[in-house]
This record gives sequence, structure tokens and C-alpha cells, in this order.
Amino acid sequence: MRILILGGDGYLGWPTAMRFSKRGDEVFLVDNYLRRRAHAEAGTDSLTPILPGLPDRLAVWKDVTGLDIDFAEGDLTSWDVVERVFEEFRPDAVVHYGEMPSAPYSMKDRDHAVFTQTNNVMGTLNVLFAMAKLVPDCHLVKLGTMGEYGTPNIDIEEGFIEINHNERSDTLPFPKLPGSFYHLSKVHDSHNIHFACRVWGLRATDLNQGVVYGIETPETQLDPRLATRFDYDDVFGTALNRFCLQAVIGHPLTIYGRGGQTRGYLNVVDTIQCVELAVQNAPRPGEFRVFNQFTEQFSVTQLAELVRHAGAEVGLEVEVTPIENPRVEMEEHYYNARHTKLLDLGLQPHLCPRR
Amino acid sequence: MRILILGGDGYLGWPTAMRFSKRGDEVFLVDNYLRRRAHAEAGTDSLTPILPGLPDRLAVWKDVTGLDIDFAEGDLTSWDVVERVFEEFRPDAVVHYGEMPSAPYSMKDRDHAVFTQTNNVMGTLNVLFAMAKLVPDCHLVKLGTMGEYGTPNIDIEEGFIEINHNERSDTLPFPKLPGSFYHLSKVHDSHNIHFACRVWGLRATDLNQGVVYGIETPETQLDPRLATRFDYDDVFGTALNRFCLQAVIGHPLTIYGRGGQTRGYLNVVDTIQCVELAVQNAPRPGEFRVFNQFTEQFSVTQLAELVRHAGAEVGLEVEVTPIENPRVEMEEHYYNARHTKLLDLGLQPHLCPRR
Repeated sequence: MRILILGGDGYLGWPTAMRFSKRGDEVFLVDNYLRRRAHAEAGTDSLTPILPGLPDRLAVWKDVTGLDIDFAEGDLTSWDVVERVFEEFRPDAVVHYGEMPSAPYSMKDRDHAVFTQTNNVMGTLNVLFAMAKLVPDCHLVKLGTMGEYGTPNIDIEEGFIEINHNERSDTLPFPKLPGSFYHLSKVHDSHNIHFACRVWGLRATDLNQGVVYGIETPETQLDPRLATRFDYDDVFGTALNRFCLQAVIGHPLTIYGRGGQTRGYLNVVDTIQCVELAVQNAPRPGEFRVFNQFTEQFSVTQLAELVRHAGAEVGLEVEVTPIENPRVEMEEHYYNARHTKLLDLGLQPHLCPRR
Repeated sequence: MRILILGGDGYLGWPTAMRFSKRGDEVFLVDNYLRRRAHAEAGTDSLTPILPGLPDRLAVWKDVTGLDIDFAEGDLTSWDVVERVFEEFRPDAVVHYGEMPSAPYSMKDRDHAVFTQTNNVMGTLNVLFAMAKLVPDCHLVKLGTMGEYGTPNIDIEEGFIEINHNERSDTLPFPKLPGSFYHLSKVHDSHNIHFACRVWGLRATDLNQGVVYGIETPETQLDPRLATRFDYDDVFGTALNRFCLQAVIGHPLTIYGRGGQTRGYLNVVDTIQCVELAVQNAPRPGEFRVFNQFTEQFSVTQLAELVRHAGAEVGLEVEVTPIENPRVEMEEHYYNARHTKLLDLGLQPHLCPRR
């Protein structure tokens, strides 16, 4: 198959690219190095040493495997870029990671909020218009986030919920309560993509992904130069990545507030497995399909405990210190999200090692 | 009160401005003449002769009533404009009509879709940031649309619905199925505004308005030069306005498909009454309140019948001809939308005269 990967230089985009290439698919990447630039501006960087850009990565990939991956440096908010890529590559499936991925980044100030929503929503609109015009049968596999749902007091379904109301019934989009301008941008995307499926007959899978951890996949392990990034700064680092760093440098793990904030998590190898499963099992034309993509739920306190125990195993004494929560969020809440659709397609979860 | 009206040169913005001015409020308008420019580009215009811009309108208003209304020409997507207006005027309430209002416009092509969503969503983000920074107690009265809901197979509630699911219950945003990139922009706005209320404690009323008809209000009737616009072209004209024109020129009324498309409608005087009621009854800080703003439901076929009968009363013989529907939409569907919250606040509906 011809697989177009948007955001192919990213934490998940790069290992996904290697995976599809290894499977024998024809792979084309687009990236505008947005995250690398944001890191450069902030004076932060990946903890893992990664090669400086896609030309280097692709040269090493060729070197190690003999396989070619092609790429274009470009911005998805530019219609010229998007149209040219779709016209020339004519993908069978698009794996779309190409968005600003950080909630804290989007919450810094007005500029960052407006940038995040413009970048994400208009980039995805361009992708939809390119598909409709050039490859209407192509399958869009779009990375969304479990954070679109927020923390409702009912079980979270996969994208849609059957509502019985005043003696009538309909299956409607699951209501969304996103918690940042970034998460809002993903909600906007979901509505736009759903509309394009309904009205233009496009086919799309929205992967509402949990928090991803881990940096090793079968392909990154082929050569240290093929490593993917590990972010631990306050903009791109997840709570788990930051806890790991704090454990190693001897800093107490900083839990926000009461630590009952519960979310879905998954290993990076399962992200790639899920994306593969989605691509291999395309929805029918006109179908907008939503999968909740995670394997386990943890509260922040549970995460900290896992890190404390993992630290102990390598001789680190790890302390845990609650700090005042800088966010407006519920620190204790009901959370139960369904995630069976990917399991039904054959997902084999790689769960977190337990103490 | 100090009332800021965004889109104060528009079909509804202008009569709303006059109404609040007449009530004794201090009124400030912002408009960038977006609709006038779109008309000029398309070679179309309002059927009613309207004055060429706000300076003329405000001069006549002063002339007729002795009252001052101030204004700034400016674009809400420019933060400089929005910040300056909020800094200088410091409104108690913002009535926000300042968006690209046309579904057909947004569906023309990629440029128009991206423009509509950028213009509407980023303009409203700027308004939210200005409120949070400069007037956090200000009340945002935002014009949304009943079209955000689409046509679900259950009763449409006012913004939120209590969902009982697997033995648990929560009141969540009513699911949205918007039917154009324009309607999507309003859904995006609703999510962004709801978030700003939840996280920043802003107060907002989202008026999900039906289709508005009529051009006369007590203030437009003071002087013919105070007329508001009547659009009948294929971009800004509603089905009802177009039927009226077709009746007058002897063209059969063109119903799309089976004509069962049912929507909420209201008279322009009721729009202004609703906005007044919303402003007079502000929500509490942090509250995001949604009112469904219409007084009656009609199908397209019923609209055509009303026009046929109204035509007969003035001696016109009006024919009705279904044509092939250029839109992807349900032509016959369940539609029952609640609209009691504004009635509870005291709305006195001006219903359509029946045959």
C-alpha cells in the first residue's frame, strides 16, 4: 500500500514510518519540523539523541535496511504543499500525526492558542479537501486524543453513544468536554472529519489515543541512530516521562493536587500496532469510525507508584510530593472508557510491568 | 449598560444596535464590512436600499433620535483591534454577530471553507481572550445557530442533555451534527466558549438561533434611511427570502427535493427581544448557557405554502416546483426542538401570520 505519514518526523510518526516501510509498504513522509523548532526556541530537547532531520534518518534507514522512504518538508496549512503531495503520491491511506500536540503549549497565551487551533484545524481541512479532490477512496487514519472526552460522569464510549430520550432513540457523537485549546482543536477536527465522511463519502478512522509511553520498537532497536524522541520538558513531556526524569535525578515526583486524575495509557509499540490494524481494516466509504486507543487506565498517583517501584528495582529511592495544581481540572473523578474495538481487530496489548 | 455589538453593520447587528441605543444603553459597534465586500465581489446586494456604511447610518441615527453610537471599522481576527476595543470601551455585555454567516459561502470551495472557519473561530477566540484579560465579568451573548444540532432522531434540548447510561447519569453538551463548514465553525465556537467559561469563569449565553425573517423593527420604522438589509441572493438569502422574491417576479418557488427539511424560524423583532432578554438576565460567572432561539418550526414545503397564500392576498399567482436537491441532507426527518428558556424569561413571540 501507499502510506502517507503526516508528522513523520515526530515521536510516533518516525517509528510508524519505519514500521510500514519494513512491512513492504511504500511510505512518504511530510513534516515541517514544528516540534524541533518549538524545542529550539525553548532551549529544550529530546533526552534520546535523535538525528538532526529526516534526510539523515532516511539515509540511516536505507543504510540499515536497504529500504527507501521518501519525504517532503512542508506545512499542512499550505494548500500548495498538501495538494502537491496528494497529487504526486496518491496515497491509499494517510496516517495523520501532523499537528501541534501539546496542551501546555496551547495554554501559554493567546498567540499559542490561536496558533494551535489554526495549525491543527486548517491543516486537517486541507487534508480533507485534498482527499475529496484527488483520492476520494483513500482512508484517513487521524490521531485524536482521549482528552477530547474530558472526564464525564458516565462510561465513555468509542466516538458514538446511543441516547434514549423522550421515547425516541438515536446514536449520536459522544459529547466532548476537552480540557485545553489543544484538545479543543482535536474536537474541532473530529467534527470536520465526520462531516466530510457524511457529505463527501470519505472514509476515516479517528484514533482517540491515550497517553503514549516508551521509546523502543523493533525498528528503533535496529540501530541507535534510529531512536525516536523522549521529551521530558514542561511543554512536550508527559507526566510519566517527567516522573521518570525526576526519579533519576533524585527530585521528588511532583503530583498535581490529589493525583486522582485518571487517563488511558498505552505503550508506543501498541500505538503502532493500532495504526497498522486501522490501516489494514479500512472503514467503508462514508464511514467515520472512532476507536479509543489505549490499553490501561492509571491515576497520576498510580503512575507515581509505578515509577517509585521501578526506581527501587534499579536502586533509586524515589519520593512523591503533591504540589498545588496549576490546572483547572477535577482531581478525583469517575473514569471508565470503553476500548474494545481495537482488541476486536486483534490488538495484543503490551501492558505496563507491575510491581 | 455598555453594550459592544460585533457585526454591528449586519442584518441583525444594525437593528440590535438601534434598539439598545434607544433603550438608553451606551453602544459601540465593530464591523469590517465583510458581507458588503462579499456582495460587491459577487455583484449582488440587499434588496432594501441601505446606507453605504456605519458613518452614514450613525449620522442619520443621531439626526433622527439625537442619540450617539460609536463604532470602529476593524477585523476581529486582528488581536490589536479586539484588544484596543475592549480596553477602551470596557463593555458590560458583548453581543457577538461578527462572523461570516453563510453556509453556501463556506461550501463553495476550500478557500471559502478555510476562510469561514478561520474568521469565525479565531475572531471568537480573540474575543474570549480579551474578555478574560480585560473584562472578566462581562457577559458574552454569542449568536450560534440551530443548525449546529442538525436533524437528530431525538428531541433537541437547549445545549445540554441528561444522559443515563449504564446505571450512571450526567448532563453533557448536546451532540452536534452540523451541515456545513459554516455550521461547523459555530460548533467549534460553542466548544471554545464553553471551555473559557469552565476554566476562566467567564459568563456566556449561546443563542442557537433559527432562521430569521422580516426587516421591520420599531427603530427601522423611524426613518427609511435606517432600513436593514434584505438578502435574496444564493449566498446570503434564506429559502424564505428567495421564495418571496420568486413569488414577486413570477418564478415558481424552487423547493429542494421533497421539501420536508424542517427548521426553527423567528421574526427579526423576536431576535432583538431575545438578545435583550439574554443581556438583561446574565448568567452567573462560569456559566455557559444555551438558548434555542426560535418561535415556530416549518418545513420548506410549509414555507412555500405560506408564501403562496401571502402572494394570493396581494394578487400574485404563485407556483411551487420541486427541483433536484444540490445538498446532501435528509429531505424528510424527525424534528422537534425545545425552545422554552427564552419564553420563561418573558419572550412574547411574533408569529407568522397564518392563511
